[in-house]
Amino acid sequence: MNIFSPNLFRQQFPLIESHDQSLIEKDDFMPSLIYFDNAATTQKPRQVIDCQQDYYRNFNANVHRASHQLSSKATFAFEKARSLVQGFIGAKSVKEIIWTKGATESINIVVQSLARNTLLPGDEIVLCVSEHHANIVPWQIVAEQTGAVIKVIPITEHGYIDIDEIENIISDKTKYVACAHISNVLGRINPIEQVIAKAKAVGAISVIDGTQAVAHFSVNVQSLDCDFYVFSAHKMYGPTGIGVLYGKKKHLESMPPYQGGGEMIKTVSFTQATTFNSLPFKFEAGTPNIAGVIAFAESINFLSPLLTDVSNSYGLFEKKLVNYCYQALANIAQVKFIVGGSPDIGVIAFTLTGHHNHDIAMSLDTHGIAIRSGHHCAMPLMTHLKIDGCLRVSLAAYNTVAEIDYFIDCLKNILLEGTIEQTNKQVKEEVLLELSAKEMVDIITLFSRTKGWDSRHREIMLLGKKLPRLDKALRDENTLISGCESLAWIKAEHSVQGLYSFTADSDAKIIRGLLVIVLAAFNNQTAQQIHQFDINDYFEKLGLMQHLSPSRGNGVLAIVEQIKIMAK
Amino acid sequence: MNIFSPNLFRQQFPLIESHDQSLIEKDDFMPSLIYFDNAATTQKPRQVIDCQQDYYRNFNANVHRASHQLSSKATFAFEKARSLVQGFIGAKSVKEIIWTKGATESINIVVQSLARNTLLPGDEIVLCVSEHHANIVPWQIVAEQTGAVIKVIPITEHGYIDIDEIENIISDKTKYVACAHISNVLGRINPIEQVIAKAKAVGAISVIDGTQAVAHFSVNVQSLDCDFYVFSAHKMYGPTGIGVLYGKKKHLESMPPYQGGGEMIKTVSFTQATTFNSLPFKFEAGTPNIAGVIAFAESINFLSPLLTDVSNSYGLFEKKLVNYCYQALANIAQVKFIVGGSPDIGVIAFTLTGHHNHDIAMSLDTHGIAIRSGHHCAMPLMTHLKIDGCLRVSLAAYNTVAEIDYFIDCLKNILLEGTIEQTNKQVKEEVLLELSAKEMVDIITLFSRTKGWDSRHREIMLLGKKLPRLDKALRDENTLISGCESLAWIKAEHSVQGLYSFTADSDAKIIRGLLVIVLAAFNNQTAQQIHQFDINDYFEKLGLMQHLSPSRGNGVLAIVEQIKIMAK
Repeated sequence: MNIFSPNLFRQQFPLIESHDQSLIEKDDFMPSLIYFDNAATTQKPRQVIDCQQDYYRNFNANVHRASHQLSSKATFAFEKARSLVQGFIGAKSVKEIIWTKGATESINIVVQSLARNTLLPGDEIVLCVSEHHANIVPWQIVAEQTGAVIKVIPITEHGYIDIDEIENIISDKTKYVACAHISNVLGRINPIEQVIAKAKAVGAISVIDGTQAVAHFSVNVQSLDCDFYVFSAHKMYGPTGIGVLYGKKKHLESMPPYQGGGEMIKTVSFTQATTFNSLPFKFEAGTPNIAGVIAFAESINFLSPLLTDVSNSYGLFEKKLVNYCYQALANIAQVKFIVGGSPDIGVIAFTLTGHHNHDIAMSLDTHGIAIRSGHHCAMPLMTHLKIDGCLRVSLAAYNTVAEIDYFIDCLKNILLEGTIEQTNKQVKEEVLLELSAKEMVDIITLFSRTKGWDSRHREIMLLGKKLPRLDKALRDENTLISGCESLAWIKAEHSVQGLYSFTADSDAKIIRGLLVIVLAAFNNQTAQQIHQFDINDYFEKLGLMQHLSPSRGNGVLAIVEQIKIMAK
Repeated sequence: MNIFSPNLFRQQFPLIESHDQSLIEKDDFMPSLIYFDNAATTQKPRQVIDCQQDYYRNFNANVHRASHQLSSKATFAFEKARSLVQGFIGAKSVKEIIWTKGATESINIVVQSLARNTLLPGDEIVLCVSEHHANIVPWQIVAEQTGAVIKVIPITEHGYIDIDEIENIISDKTKYVACAHISNVLGRINPIEQVIAKAKAVGAISVIDGTQAVAHFSVNVQSLDCDFYVFSAHKMYGPTGIGVLYGKKKHLESMPPYQGGGEMIKTVSFTQATTFNSLPFKFEAGTPNIAGVIAFAESINFLSPLLTDVSNSYGLFEKKLVNYCYQALANIAQVKFIVGGSPDIGVIAFTLTGHHNHDIAMSLDTHGIAIRSGHHCAMPLMTHLKIDGCLRVSLAAYNTVAEIDYFIDCLKNILLEGTIEQTNKQVKEEVLLELSAKEMVDIITLFSRTKGWDSRHREIMLLGKKLPRLDKALRDENTLISGCESLAWIKAEHSVQGLYSFTADSDAKIIRGLLVIVLAAFNNQTAQQIHQFDINDYFEKLGLMQHLSPSRGNGVLAIVEQIKIMAK
């Protein structure tokens, strides 16, 4: 009998289920949420959420220095979680399981505690071009610290690490080989066994980023024979803020501690040498994320039987979903997959000819469909593929074929509307550089009358059409505002009367719309007025506060910040 | 009107309340838990627990790279939490608030990103002798990395940082001054304003560990004018795994990133220079502890009105509790406070003449009273005070006078029993070095018949009396097993037949009892038998598994580990 049932599985997730509930109540097909952003973070099953609550309600105490039962109970659960992780990845010993705040920290520990102390000028670090920034930037930092050199393995046209190239790239000079089990953009299971074997053959240390792998199939670090393996709980149905560094004991023992503090010491003295604790505690300074660790264990309890089930019904269902979605997308003419062939896990990346990724993602969002657009923390891969970014649909086993159908329908409609728009492109480009106070009030009035995210989204898109484009020559590094989802450029001018005026542009329509709103507030103001202007209050009045990310993700606050810097 | 009511406050804490409930049901005064370990971690109010659950159930998504509403909602709550912390400590800008996994990591960031890059050989770092290891070990590591020298400020006889000494210790050579607002052992509010001013006068950077302060009174980093201030959420009614690094913007801006990864970059390239994000994101590589941050905000919502209330009824009640407890302890002849005078916050540290701290703590635990014993991650303070460790009672505003009364009664009874025992000390010291298999079975039988933690505790204490003491000359660094709560020593011998025998000792009676149980299993066994022995199974049969911490905290597993190492 299959232990995995798609329906029962879906029902384990309160966030997903609550939207299904509201669906039923509304008696309407359109769900309020289709969550296709699982490679960023998965939703959490009830038992994981409840487990964390149980900890706080019934046995919350600090661990390890127990002289009372409550602390013993917490410590017991905390260390049992470590054994569970050991079993989950087939590590030899619990001493090889280090709790970290996530895969990113895990990599940084290897880099700073081991690589920084062993690399010599000219030594080589080998990475794959498709790595996540978390498996690039730490190596770039240590390369600068030590004089080591980074070498890059390309990918095949189907998005796999190019195994034919490793013979040329991995050599006696190579000291570290770091690569992802699965890229978070490409969704291909890399032939890491061969990479690890080659690294071993030249005496290099292998560091595998398993973040995108562990939720999809069983991993055994002893079979892989990698030196280090890292992953995060939150991408495998577990809580945020906790991850694992697996390392072979011999390496971990040779490494100095990463952080100093309580728990990682044996003795501390101002007059004699301070001595450090044994593994794994040497790497766990300070009070750990106890609730996180305990809930992480519960996510392994949840996931592990699915991954080890002989029928593999969980894996097969995931595969069915991704094939279905891939085929449906392949049937849309404008869809361009970023590499050839279908992926191995539910991560599908593509662009749409003639459309900005961010605009598509925002339009889908008005239909309750959550996908991601941007560089996905893999800028070198984007450069390699000669794209600015892409859209990424990432599926989990709680997703359904019906959700994919709805997504495909919405996407087709958005593309159709876009085509109609372009043929009717007669909108007069009004120059907004000298928007008066009245016009600013107009924007506030406009949005105060507009109810609902989708209507506001339409208004923003319409406003975007009124923004004059910035000369291409001016769209450079000097005018660029950093943002994950799209590019934006801004330029300031300053009148003799001390008034500032700004011209701005973006490659995404939605950002152009938001720029109009922002410039309406700041143009023709003095530096003082600009600095005193309360953007939060303004956005709240517009009803945009709760919809727009306050990070520089979509760039709005970054734009405002840049304006304030320019008006100094 | 007072906004703080002790009863209503207590009712906010499910863990505390559930024991009150079981109290009422049992119609018995003795509660099953009196939690006096609040300086280690506080319990969590309902709204904090619920808030985390609400996040996972209703808006769980990854933050910052939002192209969908769910992510926007999570990001908004995440960044709102940052503003809340900014307001809570009176920082100038949200850019000065960096999320870390706790105060320990916060200090490590300052040390590795700033101090490591600026200290020169001979430069001085000034610490107080009463610092927590978290504010010592990172500085020792960087001193070794850079050739800087650590200078130590003593404390006064009342446990305050000795302000008269700073004139001699802080000089032009001083580059960093790191000290706790309140020591986690002494509970005194240090005159950090003067320390900070002196540091500033010589151009040194001040790093204040506010971990024990922020739950008790309002802190304003701008008034203090410190360069850095650090604290952890879990000691102020918040979740585990999240903390704050506050730093003046000019410092944070000058510092290189601490970890590399997603989120902390602006652009990543293999061919051009990778550029970093602006504050605070530069220091926040990887997916953060989103649920932790959001629940942390709720703990500030909970705590902040109490700290800023003009009547200060919360602070006055805390003060009332600590004074009451201090006076009651002062009336017990054997109590020796580790420094003179009563503390400023609810942290009272003492020893008991003629008794091992660990034994007292374990005995209190059989009455449901959770206090802590050991060095409290402040070994240099213990050395300074010429003690091995101490007992620490730490109170929160949900504690009551009735709980203190009960604790004092129990403590008096334990001391009385101890006295009776000593006068009757006629127990024959049986030599257990050659315990037979039968005797081992006896131990199992004994414990399988013994129900309840208090009865088992008594049996362990009785067993402890049978352990012959190890010669004092043999209790040295070579035989020592590291453990937080007590000292233990072990020595192996090896017969010509290949059998191992171990002699062991501890300064705590409870550990001596546990040593008997452990040695019963391992003495007169071959190396193979020793390595094959399943200690978990053995302890489970004894009914000790759930009561004894699996960490090296109480030393049992550390002892077993040491035995296995010795039998190689």
